[in-house]
This record gives sequence, C-alpha cells and structure tokens, in this order.
Amino acid sequence: MANEEKLKAQLAAYLEGWKTNDKVHWLELFAEDAKLEDPVGTPAHAGKEAIAAFWDLVHQMPMNFFPEMQRAVVCGNEGMLLFRMVTRPEGGPGIAMDIVDIFTFNDDGLITKLKAYWDSGCSNMIP
Amino acid sequence: MANEEKLKAQLAAYLEGWKTNDKVHWLELFAEDAKLEDPVGTPAHAGKEAIAAFWDLVHQMPMNFFPEMQRAVVCGNEGMLLFRMVTRPEGGPGIAMDIVDIFTFNDDGLITKLKAYWDSGCSNMIP
Repeated sequence: MANEEKLKAQLAAYLEGWKTNDKVHWLELFAEDAKLEDPVGTPAHAGKEAIAAFWDLVHQMPMNFFPEMQRAVVCGNEGMLLFRMVTRPEGGPGIAMDIVDIFTFNDDGLITKLKAYWDSGCSNMIP
Repeated sequence: MANEEKLKAQLAAYLEGWKTNDKVHWLELFAEDAKLEDPVGTPAHAGKEAIAAFWDLVHQMPMNFFPEMQRAVVCGNEGMLLFRMVTRPEGGPGIAMDIVDIFTFNDDGLITKLKAYWDSGCSNMIP
C-alpha cells in the first residue's frame, strides 16, 4: 500500500518538523487551504499563512519541543498520531502533553485538515 | 463545565455498553441520523438502524468484549477515546486492539458521528 506508506512518512515528518525546529519543511506538509484546529473547539487557523503565524506564535516561547511518537495510523486519506509533546526551556523542567492529532490528506499527500485533541487533563509537569 | 462532564459521561457509557453487552443503552447514545465509520476509510453505517445492524454483526461472533479505557478527552462538541478493546471467546485466548475513536455530539449530547482509527498494526494476540 504505497499510499499508506507515503502518509505514514508525512505523519513522521510532521513530528520531525517540531523536533528539529524546521518551520520550512513543516509548513511544506500543508496544502494551501489547510485548516489547523488546536485544540478542537477553538477557532481554526485557516490557510498556510495563518498556520505559519501559529507556528511563529508557539515558537516565541523560549522552549524546545521533544515529540515522542507513540502510534501512527493511516485510514484511507486520514491519519492519526498519538504522541507526547515534551516542552521545556533550556535546561529547565518541562511540560509533557499527551495529544491525539487527526489529519486529513489530499491526493498529493498534503495536509488539508489537522485537528488536535487534548484538554487540561492531558498535561503534566516533568522534572 | 457541565457540557464537558456530560460528554465525558457519554464517552464512558459508550464503552460500558460494549463491556456489559447492552445494545439498548449503547444505541440510545446515538442520534437518529448518526454515522459510524469503523475503521475510517470504509463505508459509513448511516442511521441508527444501520448502526444497530453493525452491532448485531459484530455480536454474531461468540466473543466477549472487554474495553479498557486509557484516555477520554472532550474538546467543544467533540470527544476522543483512547482505549484497548480486548476480544475473546469464552475462556480462550483473545485479541487486543488499540483504538482511537473520535466522536461528534449534537446539542442533546447524542453521537452524530463516530470515526474509529486503527489499522493492521494495532492488533495483537493475547493469551
């Protein structure tokens, strides 16, 4: 299943972008008209420009991101990532957030929709 | 957040229906026009009658279901369940399937959409 492999690679690349702080490659994963909703229930960031602004906003914090992938599933043209995002300032204690992301892809394998599922019960301080 | 509590209770009731083999209460959780897609990428079971038929089909197997909830998240009018479904015949070895279900609820707290994310990599035989 070539499509499944391709989409699994996209899911991995998505987390890799966070890990390596690589905005350019991360943004290339999205379609022009993509919508990002994080967390679900809040207004979506619609379009690549808005998604870039979301990245910039998050990266204004003096933090490093260490995503730990736990499961990647591809179903048709959708994907699911189960992962823990560890966020910490240089040398300091951090926050671990347990997240489920649901992706919709277009025929080119680009993300058209990303919905992040987490709430206040999903975060923990870590040393 | 009364709504969040109500929807979390619906998520718990959904798994409880599987656990107690209670089709009536399980089916009451769905809106009349609900769609169930399991796994995502396959044709949806549209409408309560089709969802009841899905239940019947699954329960034709001489199996018991033991869902183990791992995380329940409510985001706006959507919900996420992370759980392991253990399926086994009377006294025999079983199958553990790791699943993420995404729910959409209407204003009455009834399920209008259920999408199950799992693939062939999510199952394991267990003694």
